[in-house]
This record gives sequence, C-alpha cells and structure tokens, in this order.
Amino acid sequence: MRIVAALGGNALLRRGEPLTAENQRQNVRVACEQLARIIPGNELVIAHGNGPQVGLLALQGAAYSQVEPYPLDVLGAQTEGMIGYMIEQELGNLLPFETPFATILTQVEVDASDPAFQHPSKPIGPVYSRQEADRLAAEKGWHMAPDGDRFRRVVPSPQPKRIFEIRPVKWLLEKGSVVICAGGGGIPTVYDAGRKLHGIEAVIDKDLCSALLAEQLDSDLLIIATDVEAVYVDWGQPTQRAIARAHPDDLQALSFAAGSMGPKVQAACDFTRQTGKTAVIGSLADIEGIVAGRAGTRVSLSEPGIDYRQ
Amino acid sequence: MRIVAALGGNALLRRGEPLTAENQRQNVRVACEQLARIIPGNELVIAHGNGPQVGLLALQGAAYSQVEPYPLDVLGAQTEGMIGYMIEQELGNLLPFETPFATILTQVEVDASDPAFQHPSKPIGPVYSRQEADRLAAEKGWHMAPDGDRFRRVVPSPQPKRIFEIRPVKWLLEKGSVVICAGGGGIPTVYDAGRKLHGIEAVIDKDLCSALLAEQLDSDLLIIATDVEAVYVDWGQPTQRAIARAHPDDLQALSFAAGSMGPKVQAACDFTRQTGKTAVIGSLADIEGIVAGRAGTRVSLSEPGIDYRQ
Repeated sequence: MRIVAALGGNALLRRGEPLTAENQRQNVRVACEQLARIIPGNELVIAHGNGPQVGLLALQGAAYSQVEPYPLDVLGAQTEGMIGYMIEQELGNLLPFETPFATILTQVEVDASDPAFQHPSKPIGPVYSRQEADRLAAEKGWHMAPDGDRFRRVVPSPQPKRIFEIRPVKWLLEKGSVVICAGGGGIPTVYDAGRKLHGIEAVIDKDLCSALLAEQLDSDLLIIATDVEAVYVDWGQPTQRAIARAHPDDLQALSFAAGSMGPKVQAACDFTRQTGKTAVIGSLADIEGIVAGRAGTRVSLSEPGIDYRQ
Repeated sequence: MRIVAALGGNALLRRGEPLTAENQRQNVRVACEQLARIIPGNELVIAHGNGPQVGLLALQGAAYSQVEPYPLDVLGAQTEGMIGYMIEQELGNLLPFETPFATILTQVEVDASDPAFQHPSKPIGPVYSRQEADRLAAEKGWHMAPDGDRFRRVVPSPQPKRIFEIRPVKWLLEKGSVVICAGGGGIPTVYDAGRKLHGIEAVIDKDLCSALLAEQLDSDLLIIATDVEAVYVDWGQPTQRAIARAHPDDLQALSFAAGSMGPKVQAACDFTRQTGKTAVIGSLADIEGIVAGRAGTRVSLSEPGIDYRQ
C-alpha cells in the first residue's frame, strides 16, 4: 500500500514545550517509533508541519540585528532541512541499514491573488501574553491572533496548487525509498509576470498540501496524524463522541475549529473526493491501528452517514 | 557526461558582503546562469559550501536567549534547505519547465576519532576584529583563528567517510533530474556504541565531500568552482603562474593555503587518483570553458608534470 502520513506540529512538539533541538528530537523519535511499524510491506511518504519551528527561526533572525531577518519562504526551506534531518536520522536508526531514505526540498505554487493574503490565519511560533503580543504587533508589524487564552503570530495560509518536485518523489518511492517531503506544507512560491518563480511570505497548511501530495502520488491511504485519536463532535463537552467513519459530505456538514481540526477535515475530504480512496485522521500514537483499519476517523465514499465509536 | 560541480562559499557570497537573503539570492542567480549553460546534454549534480550561512545561523540562534542555540549538525541541515532552495529555484527559472529538480538532504558519516576534532580549523560565519574575536572566544567558548588581518570562528572539519543518500541521488540522476546535494559538505554524523547515528558538532569540507560524491556516482568530471580562474604557484607574488594541467603527484608536491586552495587541491587529486577521471579547479564564471576543456586547472593522470598557462 502507498501511504502518505502527515505529522502535525503538535505531534512533533507538545504544546508549551520549549523548542529546543533536544525536545524536538525526542518527539521526532517517538513519532518515528510509530512510523517504523508501518513501513514493512508499504511505501511511505512522510510530510510534516513546521509552525513552531518557522516561528522560532523568525524570532532568532529578528534577535540578531546585523543582518535583516530572512523572509518566510527562506525560513520554511530551513525548517524542511532541519525537521527532515531529524526524521530521516531517527527513523533510519529504527530500520534495517539497507532502507533508502530521501528528504526532498519541496516548493509549492500558490496563487498570489489567494484571499488568504488579505486574511492572515496560520499561527506560527510561540504563544505570548496579550502585552507581548501587542508589543510585537507594534514593533514588527506582525498580525497576532488569540490562541486559547494567549496569542500567537498569524501569517497568510494560501491554498497549495502544484507541488514542483512530485516526479522525484514518485521516482524514489518506486525505488523503495522512504521519502520525507512537503515539510511545513511546502515552500510557498508564486510566478511573477515574467514567469519567474519566487518565494512569498506565507505558510501553507500542511494537511491541505499533504492531501494534494497523496492525490498526485496515487496514494492508497492518507493519514493525518495528530495528538487526538479521532475527530469528535461536541469536542470538550460532556456529549462529545468520537467519529469512527464518515462520508465527506456528512463530515463537512459539521463544524470544526478553523485553526486545528478544520483544515484536517478539509484535507481528508478533499483527498477522498478526488481519489475515492480513504483518508484517516487519528493519533500518531496508534498509527498501526490506523493502517490496520481499526483506529482514527476514516473518511471514505463507501457509504453515506457517520458512524460513531462505542 | 555526468558532472559534479562544487560551488565554493565565495562563489555564493562575496567576501565581506552582508549575508542577507537578497545578497545570497543574487549571487546564487549569477552562479545559476553559469550552471544552466552546462546542463544540456549532461547530468549535473550541484554541491555547495555553507560556511558563511552556518555561521550566521549560529549567531542568530545565540542572539535569541529563550531557546538554547542549536548544534552545528542541525544548523547544517537548515543551510542545506535554505541554499538548496535558492539554487533550485533560480536554476529552475533558467531552464525549461519540464526539467526535474531535486534537493536531497545529505548526511555524511565521519569518524568520531578523527584528529580534526582536536584541531578546529574550518572557518565559519563572519569576520571579526581581534577585540570581537577575543570577546566571542571568552563568552561562547568558540575557537577563533586569523583570517587575513581579521578573525573568524573555526570548527572541526573531519574527513567524510560515507554519504548515506548516495542511492537516491544516483536514481534521480538516472531519471534525468538535476540534483542538489551534499550542501556544506553534508551533515556530519557518527555512529555511537549502540550503532545509532547522530549528529556531531563539525562542518565537513565541501570539496572533500564533493570528491567522495563524484567518485561514488561514477562521475566523469568533478568541477571545483571558486572565484579564481585556476590554481596558481607563487599566488600573490610577481612570479605567480596559473596551472593549466597537472598530475596529482606533481600538484601535491607544491604547497597551498590550508583553509582555501589546500582542500580543493586535495579533493581534486583524491578524485583523480580514485577514478582516473579529470577534476578541474576553476572559476564559476567560466564553467562552460571548464566543461569544454579550455579553462581552469585540470588534474588528471594522463601524463606527469605540470603545464602552465601562457
């Protein structure tokens, strides 16, 4: 089976945890212990988020005054290198030495007229108090938005249109390589009037990009791995119920949090509608159960309606 | 012809120029205009240095006090993403849309007992006055060494032993992809006692790594592209002469600057001896002339002795 697994930022960094190299590596190691279990007999592509990391690099750049801070596309490229490295190394340590690995830098085309550029919505970097958030907004011109009872920087998150490196990814899969790509949703790029490609200040949603990736790779399964075991209705209320299986039309008739479960549901439904294949939203901690068909929220066209877990 | 071209840090950033994203991109663009000329009819692998970039990221990390600075292996991975991105994008803008590109994260095994760990010698980051250098040495425990009339941070530069991603690079070349890899000499890694791979604080010489890469790819030609048009004897003196062609034994009987021309000569001679093929050290500005056989210093086993340019 060809599988695309998208690892959420929360799967790589627990909320509120300092973004040290060591913390990241420990979380990557835990994720890789799960991923290693589904590799035998399957082709695996690993995509991942970069929200906390790209935000940190922006802060580090801003803290060093001798060189002006790098734009988000360049920082996104840096995070693809950094996170890809940690995943490749940790996963490599769990698999037979002969297993080939490749981490592929990924550029993604977006539309410069995407309405997202007028409405920054993607949270990146650490959480701040209101006072800190106000100061950063004034000093750096950043857009800040509430995140629980605190605040985070938000940036535009346009729709992914095209993954430039799709052929190399496919070729490497055909050779039996584990491929890590589309990190942070891919580096956002646009064509200018002269048909030259250049980067743009944005962060693409990694789940939407993973859905496009899975579709273009003719993937049999898209896994959106996060830190909860399923999509819930009435999340956080006494009536909450975990969804075991849903048709995309019925799932999207419900409403989910814009910044977190919303894009995951959108991505899963997009993939299923485009391909007729199954997408699963579930916990990285039970990725074996997801592949075996017994865990997570399965989105498929097989029948209408929603089934809940008992 | 299969060609590995190694771009020097000086080819990507002119000495003393501030390391802004825009300056880097402009220099990458100039380099890519040259590289684009040798792609038709050839297979091309591009390797590159990262000395100034990895030094800058270390400074940015040190300037942001909330999270402890990342180690050099992680910063090296970041630079592979960043520089690879710029090369891939700029070169892509000069070639037909159909040309496939892949930037491959590259881990390289080094020996933990390499004597280089006792003798840091590889300059990274910006140049400093003596006062600044003394302060940084005291504050951060960095090793600092003279560089012309100023000072730079120096880190260990162990010998590259194995390139882990060599098979994916080969597979992509066979598919006609332009491949960017082994950035910054590759990310330095070592096996621990439990046969787990992990990063180590070092920067591998990118020319030595490129020679190993070219050898393992059965490359027909290794180009070590820098900002001078040839290897010179009596460099900087009235008697200086440019070498047109040399046997490695005769070339290595001469002496060259340890931090700059020395490793290039070593890398060219290593490749030629191991493979019987030609290595050329020359100017990025005349890479077409290098491929055509009329520019640069050609190192080959074809005959003994040294030929000088008229």
